[in-house]
Amino acid sequence: MKRSEKGSGRPLGIIIVGASGDLAQRKIVPALFALYCQGFLPRDFHVYGLARTPMTHEEFRARLMMHLTCRYVPGESCAARMAEFLGRCYYSAGQYGSVDAYLDLFQMMRGIEGRQAVDRIFYMAVPPSIFMQVARALGDSGLVACGSRKEWSRVVIEKPFGRDRASSDQLVQEMGKVFTEEFTYRIDHYLGKEIVQNLMVLRFANLVFEPIWNREFVDSIHITWKEPVGVGLRGGYFDSFGILRDVMQNHLLQILALLAMEKPGDYSSAAVRDAKVSLLRCIPPPALDEVCVGQYAASPKGPAYKGEPSVPCDSLTATYAAALLRIRNPRWDGVPVFLDAGKAMNERINEVRMRFKGVPGNIFGGQVGELPANELVIRIQPDEAITMKVMNKTPGLDLKLEKTELNLRYQTAFKEEIPDAYECLLLDVIEGDRNLFIRSDELAAAWDVFTPVLHELESRRIQPEAYPFGGGMPEAAFGLARRNGLSAVQG
Amino acid sequence: MKRSEKGSGRPLGIIIVGASGDLAQRKIVPALFALYCQGFLPRDFHVYGLARTPMTHEEFRARLMMHLTCRYVPGESCAARMAEFLGRCYYSAGQYGSVDAYLDLFQMMRGIEGRQAVDRIFYMAVPPSIFMQVARALGDSGLVACGSRKEWSRVVIEKPFGRDRASSDQLVQEMGKVFTEEFTYRIDHYLGKEIVQNLMVLRFANLVFEPIWNREFVDSIHITWKEPVGVGLRGGYFDSFGILRDVMQNHLLQILALLAMEKPGDYSSAAVRDAKVSLLRCIPPPALDEVCVGQYAASPKGPAYKGEPSVPCDSLTATYAAALLRIRNPRWDGVPVFLDAGKAMNERINEVRMRFKGVPGNIFGGQVGELPANELVIRIQPDEAITMKVMNKTPGLDLKLEKTELNLRYQTAFKEEIPDAYECLLLDVIEGDRNLFIRSDELAAAWDVFTPVLHELESRRIQPEAYPFGGGMPEAAFGLARRNGLSAVQG
Repeated sequence: MKRSEKGSGRPLGIIIVGASGDLAQRKIVPALFALYCQGFLPRDFHVYGLARTPMTHEEFRARLMMHLTCRYVPGESCAARMAEFLGRCYYSAGQYGSVDAYLDLFQMMRGIEGRQAVDRIFYMAVPPSIFMQVARALGDSGLVACGSRKEWSRVVIEKPFGRDRASSDQLVQEMGKVFTEEFTYRIDHYLGKEIVQNLMVLRFANLVFEPIWNREFVDSIHITWKEPVGVGLRGGYFDSFGILRDVMQNHLLQILALLAMEKPGDYSSAAVRDAKVSLLRCIPPPALDEVCVGQYAASPKGPAYKGEPSVPCDSLTATYAAALLRIRNPRWDGVPVFLDAGKAMNERINEVRMRFKGVPGNIFGGQVGELPANELVIRIQPDEAITMKVMNKTPGLDLKLEKTELNLRYQTAFKEEIPDAYECLLLDVIEGDRNLFIRSDELAAAWDVFTPVLHELESRRIQPEAYPFGGGMPEAAFGLARRNGLSAVQG
Repeated sequence: MKRSEKGSGRPLGIIIVGASGDLAQRKIVPALFALYCQGFLPRDFHVYGLARTPMTHEEFRARLMMHLTCRYVPGESCAARMAEFLGRCYYSAGQYGSVDAYLDLFQMMRGIEGRQAVDRIFYMAVPPSIFMQVARALGDSGLVACGSRKEWSRVVIEKPFGRDRASSDQLVQEMGKVFTEEFTYRIDHYLGKEIVQNLMVLRFANLVFEPIWNREFVDSIHITWKEPVGVGLRGGYFDSFGILRDVMQNHLLQILALLAMEKPGDYSSAAVRDAKVSLLRCIPPPALDEVCVGQYAASPKGPAYKGEPSVPCDSLTATYAAALLRIRNPRWDGVPVFLDAGKAMNERINEVRMRFKGVPGNIFGGQVGELPANELVIRIQPDEAITMKVMNKTPGLDLKLEKTELNLRYQTAFKEEIPDAYECLLLDVIEGDRNLFIRSDELAAAWDVFTPVLHELESRRIQPEAYPFGGGMPEAAFGLARRNGLSAVQG
């Protein structure tokens, strides 16, 4: 079945709470426009923006238009499609925590839609500190349809989901009073990336990987995330979370779960999420000495973290972290998993590196020396790619072996446009496909991995190791990797 | 150790018997020139041509020069290198079976080399019907040094090595009176091809292939060889051998042996050839109904085989053959192996296609239908390549799976020049590395596979199925493949 045929057929109203912010303007609305151009939105849809700034519909539309692109429509008709789309966008100003704001919004919507039954998506494009205010006010307005009628109201929220297991549980519980679990879509936008979705296909639609996907053949796993920029103007937000919460506890653990989980019974969201939860529950929390934290210092490439706007000058917040995890199950026991993430580093990269063990009984030993190990590399950004590093004979008259790459580079292998992660995830919300969203028990299991060490770092006021802006992996992280036999971890 | 340092240091004389023929002019001498340019020949070497046509040294050199190329030398100095090389080439005319011819040749060599000890290679670039005459005359001349002195005499012969097990044994025995097994180099020039040599590296220098290289994961193996040209002027030779002897019994069985053999104890020629012999001995001869033969008929693309020069108009010789083999050992029992080879077909190709089994428990079933199986393709010609066909998610918002190729194409992956097979093999002869040459017990084991069915085809005068010049696989061969579950065999 084509996805465009899967909707309910009812009109759809998409309410973006925080419509004047960056996320709404740069990601959500452009993704909706892309879905619209590809015919994935219901015929009768509207987009409603809510934010504090007073604005007319026209002013709102003018701001949205700046970020729309013609990727999916031929040149000439693009302006017309944009005008049609923007004509369905409306704006209403109000305070996020005020019931009146939502009553006003609903009145406006009713004026546009009439009295028919309408499905609704509430996209929380606001800071997490406001999630609960919004949810309470929405709940008090009595206008959210959760399960009681045939039309539905779904809520989309993005990380961070709390600061630890307890605050996450509290958020889940409070939000749950308005939107039950079934209608809650917790986004991790890394899960919307093509190559992350492809992980399951690669593993479960091919015969050749499964036999080697275990402790007998895999030496170690390294999942890394780095970006070359600092926190910039987001210092205020970042400082209260830090890199462990901002990247590692969500994106990297999610990627690990998909990479390492057992084969789900089927491709349903229940089965896939069950498999991920089971995997996460097999990961004991790392001890303090299995985690390294760093914080960037001034260098010719950029300022110190402590010198960024809104960052306290005595901040202990980590902008780099590395953690050694173990998966205590029959498939992975004994295979070290090294996660690391950092801002203001020497490159932009997010990749998975699965290193295999050496070849037992090397028959080429005398002639070529040590054989490098095979490696499967799944690169998520900047350019999506899958490569398998294998040894081949270098052409020539000498017996020389060379590590070459069996290469599947997305940009060249596929002619199709790679959709933005938000397009994919928003379409899933419209269709009620929860495969790529984080269920509450999954969220709890992910917090359980990192909550103890987060608390310990904070209660002991552990000083992060300074590393220069634009530098490589801090020395302590290298040491952690080396001590645990992760020879593949590169700086 | 660099190969160029491995020689004995003694002067070397390379005697080409049949020096006026195509093989000598187009392959052997150009390969020697390439080795010379790369510094792989000893400082003191000479090339001696023997053939029936009377010619001066200068005439001989002028003919050789036409086929030399400047691949390994920069433009300006190429002419000088050619002149140096050709200055070391000499010619002597004589009858192949005459002792006097060799005595004359040796006298000429002595005049050039003086009385020092010289290593010698005798390259039999003559039709197989003359091998024994040459060997006897050489033996009678008393000038071949085989093991008695420290300098050596090695003989290089090319297929066909007899017509069946008995005639092959006889040839081995007769030749053995002059050149013992240790000094006999039986060339299968497919074994000199880079990618065929790489087969062992791929299998035994990587961890990731071994676990799936067996009956549990492999569904079937197909090794195919086709060329789009007919026999042309070689009809006289071809008609007395046919495609089974010309291609299948040697090239294809050798490739199969390298593909399917157990891991040798080390990379020595003894261990590698032991492993190949063990594999070949596990292949029972195919029954008559497991073999199909075809013969090309006239079409707009070319003449009928029976209309080619020197081919009898009632010839029953097969120009296409397919055979279903089984390997009765713990690794491969139950995996059908389909070999086929044909002249005057629809394309030029030589490749190995290892098809894996389907994925048990397809979780994508409902959404994407049947999953195509993984396939490893090793293409030997026209362009050398290794590809693994794997399923990936097609980028896009629908869940669509696509068979894509993890690709290692030699021409783009390696910057090195791919040496000609003859360069590699001749260097091995100079260095005494017998890894890529066919030992007598290996030859016997290969004949044992096909001798029974060859005799049966001939004694029953089986009529080959006609197929049009430039056509695809004959229908009977398709039927054979299908009956045995080889769904991957393509026309």
